[in-house]
Amino acid sequence: MPETPCLLIDVPTMNANISAMAEVAKRNRVAWRPHAKTHKIPDIAKAQLMAGASGITVAKISEAEVMAEHGIEDIFVAYPLVVEAKIERAVRLSQRIRLIVGTDSFEGARRLSETAGRHDHVLQVRLEIDTGMKRTGVEYDKAVELALLIHGLPNVRLSGIFTFRGAMLDGKPTLDLEKAGKEEGELMVRLAEAMRAEGIPIADVSVGSTPTGAYAAEVKGVTEIRPGTFVFNDRMQAKFGVCSLDDCAAVIQATVVSRPSERHAVIDGGSKTFATDVQPHTSPLNLVGFGHILEAPDAVLERFSEEHGIIRLEPHHTLAVGDIVHIIPNHVCSTLNLHNYVYLVDGPSIEKVAVQARGMLE
Amino acid sequence: MPETPCLLIDVPTMNANISAMAEVAKRNRVAWRPHAKTHKIPDIAKAQLMAGASGITVAKISEAEVMAEHGIEDIFVAYPLVVEAKIERAVRLSQRIRLIVGTDSFEGARRLSETAGRHDHVLQVRLEIDTGMKRTGVEYDKAVELALLIHGLPNVRLSGIFTFRGAMLDGKPTLDLEKAGKEEGELMVRLAEAMRAEGIPIADVSVGSTPTGAYAAEVKGVTEIRPGTFVFNDRMQAKFGVCSLDDCAAVIQATVVSRPSERHAVIDGGSKTFATDVQPHTSPLNLVGFGHILEAPDAVLERFSEEHGIIRLEPHHTLAVGDIVHIIPNHVCSTLNLHNYVYLVDGPSIEKVAVQARGMLE
Repeated sequence: MPETPCLLIDVPTMNANISAMAEVAKRNRVAWRPHAKTHKIPDIAKAQLMAGASGITVAKISEAEVMAEHGIEDIFVAYPLVVEAKIERAVRLSQRIRLIVGTDSFEGARRLSETAGRHDHVLQVRLEIDTGMKRTGVEYDKAVELALLIHGLPNVRLSGIFTFRGAMLDGKPTLDLEKAGKEEGELMVRLAEAMRAEGIPIADVSVGSTPTGAYAAEVKGVTEIRPGTFVFNDRMQAKFGVCSLDDCAAVIQATVVSRPSERHAVIDGGSKTFATDVQPHTSPLNLVGFGHILEAPDAVLERFSEEHGIIRLEPHHTLAVGDIVHIIPNHVCSTLNLHNYVYLVDGPSIEKVAVQARGMLE
Repeated sequence: MPETPCLLIDVPTMNANISAMAEVAKRNRVAWRPHAKTHKIPDIAKAQLMAGASGITVAKISEAEVMAEHGIEDIFVAYPLVVEAKIERAVRLSQRIRLIVGTDSFEGARRLSETAGRHDHVLQVRLEIDTGMKRTGVEYDKAVELALLIHGLPNVRLSGIFTFRGAMLDGKPTLDLEKAGKEEGELMVRLAEAMRAEGIPIADVSVGSTPTGAYAAEVKGVTEIRPGTFVFNDRMQAKFGVCSLDDCAAVIQATVVSRPSERHAVIDGGSKTFATDVQPHTSPLNLVGFGHILEAPDAVLERFSEEHGIIRLEPHHTLAVGDIVHIIPNHVCSTLNLHNYVYLVDGPSIEKVAVQARGMLE
């Protein structure tokens, strides 16, 4: 058994999650380009490709480089690259594999075209659209105008549009995933048609996250979904109703190191073991605590220090010093990102695997 | 210049912070055993030892191993080790360097003694006391009784007591650091005396964090302080009044990748670049946003996705695509923990340094 704290991944559950998403894509006849941010492990990306994924999505050129180094040959960097040194790296990579990069501004696209031009190269790009999340993405009403400008640049080929909206409706987090996913798909299909009417050959309409992907995929005209979290699932997705807690493949294994009072126990994992970006009691999910403790489902993982997880107990809980617990984290993507290694558990077999694209910030 | 996002450390500021804490210890004639959780870099630990630190503190046996491998020979693992495999590692390390380990329960201490005994070894231990934080640490009123039991064990030598309280008073976060630090010191000195009255030779009374260390050090009978964050300082400590923003040695360097509207810009760092454990608007600090943007001090780093930082802007802000910004994080310890490398900046020189003890979870 690995020492605690560590992240265990149950391989049969992961494989079932991959098969289920492959089936969603197949049923709706859309391409499926899973986001590798959740696992950051080339072998898991390959398992997704074997199951029918058309390629993968990443957020960083550095992640794309790691994935390409391990044999992945179709990668979408769903992020605006605006720094020349990074665009240079994208051009180099694009000369070896099929690479698509994101853009959401004329300035960014101009830089892509200029740098690609210096290498006599044409970069394939997709324009990111803001469909309500208000982070990156051109504002919806300005998208056709910007697409025309980008279409006119010599060394980029605008082949598609993409959005990330997560579970949002009218600018607010929602639990109505069907409505959110449908609306996301419809907004994007309508926009693609408006662009085509202007003579821009938009081939790819790429949408969909783990909560909304299955609904967005049903919209006629959507060509691709890019869910990431589904590969492991997590407590947040279970609360969304996208999966059950039994479908969560990744758990933190921790040890009770202290039981200083009747009302609390402490485990050897805190904010350097579990991500804290999905806080308890945040609307609309209103999660109680930072994780679901399999051995004490009604106990609350209430507070973290960096290396301490403080569990609030009721009198019936028996957790004692030395006990091992398994905890489904609120958000698996950012939790896995804290770990240099994970353990793939397949029945009696346990394999230690490096998270090879972790910490590839630059 | 390194690619963004990355963590830059200004070496002169760091050195000044180290000197200032050395001076606090010297003035109060206490030992100073800085917590290495903040930097996780052996060379910075060595700089602290050169400046007069008596040893270092870590939270994990794995961190102690990395530090020892790089020549650090006096290490306190301020954490209860309760798993046999880890205690075995502690015994082995303790045969090579001066090692002290924490304990806070009879069960834990019994395991330490038993494992050490199998190797004909005696482990030096300190008993952790809860002085109000309610995480690890024996309850204050039960500490003497437990100390007697541990003192009776054959293969541990109980040489001291320690506590971590941070900035707490009456179980609540406080801004009255002087009162908090003094009370922390006084509680511990009184307890040490009670233990000595029972015949336990308590030599070390170890207290103090970055916010309270300077005050706790003034209490007669306190022998050691263990601050960590001071080496870099951060926005939380500046808000506490322990330092100014100019004393913050560590900043995230990021690039504006999108300026989709007048009211917001997006940088290439999110919750995988900045820690989210110190949330905005948490009592008593009530920090606005996730960091202090040096180039736009009144703009708010309002939201994160994993790789996006969303900055809320006022009309007078001019941030444009490609601009570089520098951001003092709310909590530097957990932020640094996200980075495989940091950059030490000393005037014109920039050195890339691995965070060697990062991710040493197990």
